[in-house]
Amino acid sequence: MAGSSLGNIIKVTTWGESHGKALGAVVDGIPAGLPLCEDDIQLYLNRRKPGQSSYTTPRKEDDVCEILSGVFEGKTTGTPISVMVKNTNQKSKDYSEIAGYYRPGHADFTFDSKYGFRDYRGGGRSSGRETIGRVIAGAICAKVLNTLGIKLYTYTKSIGDIQINKNNPDEMWQNPVFMPDNDAAKTACEYLDKLKEKGDSTGGIVEGIIEGVPAGLGDPVFEKLDANLAKAIFSIGAVKGFEIGDGFEAAKATGSTNNDSFINKDGIVIKETNHSGGILGGISDGSAIVYRAAIKPTPSISMTQKTVDKDGKEIEVSIKGRHDPIIVPRAVVVVEAMAAITILDAYLMNRSSKLSDLEQ
Amino acid sequence: MAGSSLGNIIKVTTWGESHGKALGAVVDGIPAGLPLCEDDIQLYLNRRKPGQSSYTTPRKEDDVCEILSGVFEGKTTGTPISVMVKNTNQKSKDYSEIAGYYRPGHADFTFDSKYGFRDYRGGGRSSGRETIGRVIAGAICAKVLNTLGIKLYTYTKSIGDIQINKNNPDEMWQNPVFMPDNDAAKTACEYLDKLKEKGDSTGGIVEGIIEGVPAGLGDPVFEKLDANLAKAIFSIGAVKGFEIGDGFEAAKATGSTNNDSFINKDGIVIKETNHSGGILGGISDGSAIVYRAAIKPTPSISMTQKTVDKDGKEIEVSIKGRHDPIIVPRAVVVVEAMAAITILDAYLMNRSSKLSDLEQ
Amino acid sequence: MAGSSLGNIIKVTTWGESHGKALGAVVDGIPAGLPLCEDDIQLYLNRRKPGQSSYTTPRKEDDVCEILSGVFEGKTTGTPISVMVKNTNQKSKDYSEIAGYYRPGHADFTFDSKYGFRDYRGGGRSSGRETIGRVIAGAICAKVLNTLGIKLYTYTKSIGDIQINKNNPDEMWQNPVFMPDNDAAKTACEYLDKLKEKGDSTGGIVEGIIEGVPAGLGDPVFEKLDANLAKAIFSIGAVKGFEIGDGFEAAKATGSTNNDSFINKDGIVIKETNHSGGILGGISDGSAIVYRAAIKPTPSISMTQKTVDKDGKEIEVSIKGRHDPIIVPRAVVVVEAMAAITILDAYLMNRSSKLSDLEQ
Amino acid sequence: MAGSSLGNIIKVTTWGESHGKALGAVVDGIPAGLPLCEDDIQLYLNRRKPGQSSYTTPRKEDDVCEILSGVFEGKTTGTPISVMVKNTNQKSKDYSEIAGYYRPGHADFTFDSKYGFRDYRGGGRSSGRETIGRVIAGAICAKVLNTLGIKLYTYTKSIGDIQINKNNPDEMWQNPVFMPDNDAAKTACEYLDKLKEKGDSTGGIVEGIIEGVPAGLGDPVFEKLDANLAKAIFSIGAVKGFEIGDGFEAAKATGSTNNDSFINKDGIVIKETNHSGGILGGISDGSAIVYRAAIKPTPSISMTQKTVDKDGKEIEVSIKGRHDPIIVPRAVVVVEAMAAITILDAYLMNRSSKLSDLEQ
Repeated sequence: MAGSSLGNIIKVTTWGESHGKALGAVVDGIPAGLPLCEDDIQLYLNRRKPGQSSYTTPRKEDDVCEILSGVFEGKTTGTPISVMVKNTNQKSKDYSEIAGYYRPGHADFTFDSKYGFRDYRGGGRSSGRETIGRVIAGAICAKVLNTLGIKLYTYTKSIGDIQINKNNPDEMWQNPVFMPDNDAAKTACEYLDKLKEKGDSTGGIVEGIIEGVPAGLGDPVFEKLDANLAKAIFSIGAVKGFEIGDGFEAAKATGSTNNDSFINKDGIVIKETNHSGGILGGISDGSAIVYRAAIKPTPSISMTQKTVDKDGKEIEVSIKGRHDPIIVPRAVVVVEAMAAITILDAYLMNRSSKLSDLEQ
Repeated sequence: MAGSSLGNIIKVTTWGESHGKALGAVVDGIPAGLPLCEDDIQLYLNRRKPGQSSYTTPRKEDDVCEILSGVFEGKTTGTPISVMVKNTNQKSKDYSEIAGYYRPGHADFTFDSKYGFRDYRGGGRSSGRETIGRVIAGAICAKVLNTLGIKLYTYTKSIGDIQINKNNPDEMWQNPVFMPDNDAAKTACEYLDKLKEKGDSTGGIVEGIIEGVPAGLGDPVFEKLDANLAKAIFSIGAVKGFEIGDGFEAAKATGSTNNDSFINKDGIVIKETNHSGGILGGISDGSAIVYRAAIKPTPSISMTQKTVDKDGKEIEVSIKGRHDPIIVPRAVVVVEAMAAITILDAYLMNRSSKLSDLEQ
Repeated sequence: MAGSSLGNIIKVTTWGESHGKALGAVVDGIPAGLPLCEDDIQLYLNRRKPGQSSYTTPRKEDDVCEILSGVFEGKTTGTPISVMVKNTNQKSKDYSEIAGYYRPGHADFTFDSKYGFRDYRGGGRSSGRETIGRVIAGAICAKVLNTLGIKLYTYTKSIGDIQINKNNPDEMWQNPVFMPDNDAAKTACEYLDKLKEKGDSTGGIVEGIIEGVPAGLGDPVFEKLDANLAKAIFSIGAVKGFEIGDGFEAAKATGSTNNDSFINKDGIVIKETNHSGGILGGISDGSAIVYRAAIKPTPSISMTQKTVDKDGKEIEVSIKGRHDPIIVPRAVVVVEAMAAITILDAYLMNRSSKLSDLEQ
Repeated sequence: MAGSSLGNIIKVTTWGESHGKALGAVVDGIPAGLPLCEDDIQLYLNRRKPGQSSYTTPRKEDDVCEILSGVFEGKTTGTPISVMVKNTNQKSKDYSEIAGYYRPGHADFTFDSKYGFRDYRGGGRSSGRETIGRVIAGAICAKVLNTLGIKLYTYTKSIGDIQINKNNPDEMWQNPVFMPDNDAAKTACEYLDKLKEKGDSTGGIVEGIIEGVPAGLGDPVFEKLDANLAKAIFSIGAVKGFEIGDGFEAAKATGSTNNDSFINKDGIVIKETNHSGGILGGISDGSAIVYRAAIKPTPSISMTQKTVDKDGKEIEVSIKGRHDPIIVPRAVVVVEAMAAITILDAYLMNRSSKLSDLEQ
């Protein structure tokens, strides 16, 4: 079953494996007339590039993107935008060993169960490199959103038990873990150093805030805006939890504290608080959309683990190779990309909710 | 934009408002030959019926379902199964007052923003009664799953701060809050009594376990099994968070504790633990699928709240009418229904993953 | 596989069998604020109603529709519009005989091949009564189109070898075969009388003209406007051919005669001729859209035919019961309905082709 | 609106313009384990390659394909197969003139109407080169079908008024117009020579026969097999008509001649004739599927034509450049490709029609 396309009016199709010739995305449905060049996309790709710090895989990939279609004289034409990133640093021999067994926490076993065999080189299609296609699409969608006054801000909220205590957007770019709090980042880095030494890894939480979303996006029942955000972000490999607004905390709250009062501010109806995270009844309410994704620890660790080989024999393994002790910092831009795709699609889907919109 | 259809091979379309003539679902794509009658569906509908305890709305609705198509000589024909439940106890005057203002925590404001006006009677399409269509579809899908050896078990895990301490399926049916722990249920009921007295409400967590799912369901990248579960369950009105396996706890864990070792049990590869919640890389791994949904407090409370009316005037309101002090117990079957639809669709989507499956 | 839903932004789901309790449609995605009542739909349903002339089945069905959801205070709410027509005149015994064999030209054999068994009463889901759901949806879509200045005109172009020689819209309503040419209609009726006497049937061609469609509808490559019209109209039971503009005649033409010149009429670019039928490169060109559907003879005839029974025994049969000697006149409104659904969906899909449309 | 993806279980996404860097397709949902290499695809691409005869554009393009993903160790992996063909012979200056006016019969005017501007080089996305993506996908789908015993045979049935009088598959490959009748081909070529001299063009009909399709493919109501074939083939640029079985002739027939009798041949139920073209009620009936597509004359002709320029000024033009005097021969493989995609998708969609299929 085809599973690599997402969206209704915007349709994103991604392709490519960790050690294939290239990876890419076809982004269809982007309105015509948007100025677009490779730099717009490269800026996003660089945020997920390996080798940026000691906490990300030292695999050296420039991940340079090339636009193959859909842009003419510097502007989108309304037809599919095909963007490709060539794989230049595949070391296939690194991975030959893992062909024979199932890495714990990875999709080796499930791919074999489903397809009968798998591209074992670096995880193949289940590799983190698959997210290159997502980031390409997200960069383009985010550029459209920016022209509409919608801004996405996404960062690391926590690593293991270490949470941010402030939210200073400038600081996010001043530390290798993309926390908007340099103090928390320092503690987190010390924790990561220790894990690295042990050959272990950890997880964390990515938080996103989307400002400027008008009230009215999202469709009742199954195409709720939060449901589509949940799907888009849960489709990223290592995500194990998603919440909006107060999320799981809302389950402990009372109605009197969780409800957001409406107030009139200079003639505009707004909410006094934002426990809802910007979405009520599946439709954006005009407040900032606030969401969080829980990301599991990198499954590839060099500590010894038990598993079975393809013949069912129980063995002990230690995963060698180039692996991040934490996925979270590089996942930040992937989460942002998926949010951008979702919000743009919802924006375009809301162009004909009222008959009066059509009669203009 | 159409938003009331869900699924690929199975397609569920729901319709109806709180105070319209009826509500229903069209369930298309169910394989032919399944024995099906109204009782199969009624059993599920009765689990979400109002008026079952002092913690659910006293609105008296029998919610009797009628199969209108798709079943012949007691078996499904493969064509759309249309099922309807008539609304018999609409008291429209109860709701006339709320036409004029925006209830905090409800979708009144967002519906007006989107559509220019709304069916204000009992929330219209954003009412909890919308879930009748989901439960109809879920009951049918669950029956197909049962014939394939797949069982869904869903219950209340927590209400406010009160969590279950054991998981005894029998006890779930012995208390009004569907907790598989009568002691926790007793404490929870005492808490609900207090909230009711104050005119307040609370939230909670629904947990589900799906046994018997073969390895291999779900498709890489965007159609991951957990991504589709996330969307399906997040599309239920009051859900604010969703997690699978260890969920948000995984964000704090280390790789060495979070990874599940594969072992060989009597010649079959299984996982020694189930931190993954039964899904790896978006594909079922053969273990039980374990997930949780965070549900916010009922927004309708009789305590005084601030809001604005349709003219933007700030007012104070106290929501009268028939409301549950907690949504969770009645949401249990709705969550189970959405899981059943998702798992069945994934099961049917996995019928042609391998060429060798076709050549049989 | 679910096959009873159609459309992207508009989604139409139909359900029901010839001899079930009812038939209906759920029409989702209609913009909010459209005045709508049962009469709007009934007007269309009456055009396909049986028993209108001696050339249509004498089965007496009033086919009265009831709106069950999606309309509040006389206007659409933007949520699914569920409309039902009860079956009141099912005579199931008429059909008991055909349970045992495969009627030539019908879907009995193919339904059994696909599903293992079938609802044999009057064709079940493959009955012409299935089109009630299409007409319901088409009536609603046509009403939206009318408010946008788009008008559909559909009629019988030919019956057997008898073609219309003029096109007078008024005359269409003055004869029982919906030909806009009373003279041709007279000849056609005489032919039908002869066929009826012999227990035979014939086919014909339905032609449609859609005026007021702005240039720009339809999307390049797979979602071309003519491709979607072709699918929508070919999905009607008895349709065996579809063409647009000059259609099959264009295959014989030369480029110099088939190309339509662009001219400037009072400052507006229009085409001098309309061989293209209003669509170029899959996108509406501003001219009237002109299309034709070829409809096969009614397969149910009382003349003796050879076939096999369910045990594979070769037998001779004569189909009794209530059958039209020609399907075409009643198919006219069904074809129009499918065109209306398609054009409205394309109209709504074209709301975000240009970035400048969004920035307004 | 995204329009470049097609299919349900199989999803084909194409991209690229006539004079961009490359064109390609992403083919998702192909079952894992199919042996596949570039040669399998190249064989199909060569059938649509330009420069093969004096009746096709002399533009020299090798159209060499490269598989970028989805194949490992010579077999499909079940994940998206990305295939690219680089444009090597773009002469953009040839096309600079046509930027300023609307070519009759082309999509220049409609693209400008829709998108506000267009890639005018060689038609951009509306060029015949767009079909490269279709042929790539069709080649892969046809290979899967072949392993299932399903064979596609497609050829030129007529050019202008010249029809084939016999159907000898071997002869199809012995003449430049792919007619399975060398005598008709000779006459057709003479006709084409005359047209070429005048700077004119003509149309024709492509016919396809699909053998080995089991009974049961296609879904009732909107996903009928013939409806999906109609859409797939009508989505090819120059197609103006589509018919199945007797097609438009059926509109003139009587029921007694058009119905196909079922007979028992050696214990198997088959049809004695095949007026239905292999589909009854939208579901394959086990006979060969027979269909035809009417293709309009090449719109690019060097004869003088009237049109308007972008300022609305009426002008006379003569289209220079590299153009086929007939599209039909090169369209044959494109039609076959679209049929292959459609049949494979329907085959995979029919894997769960009966509950008993699942319980195996």
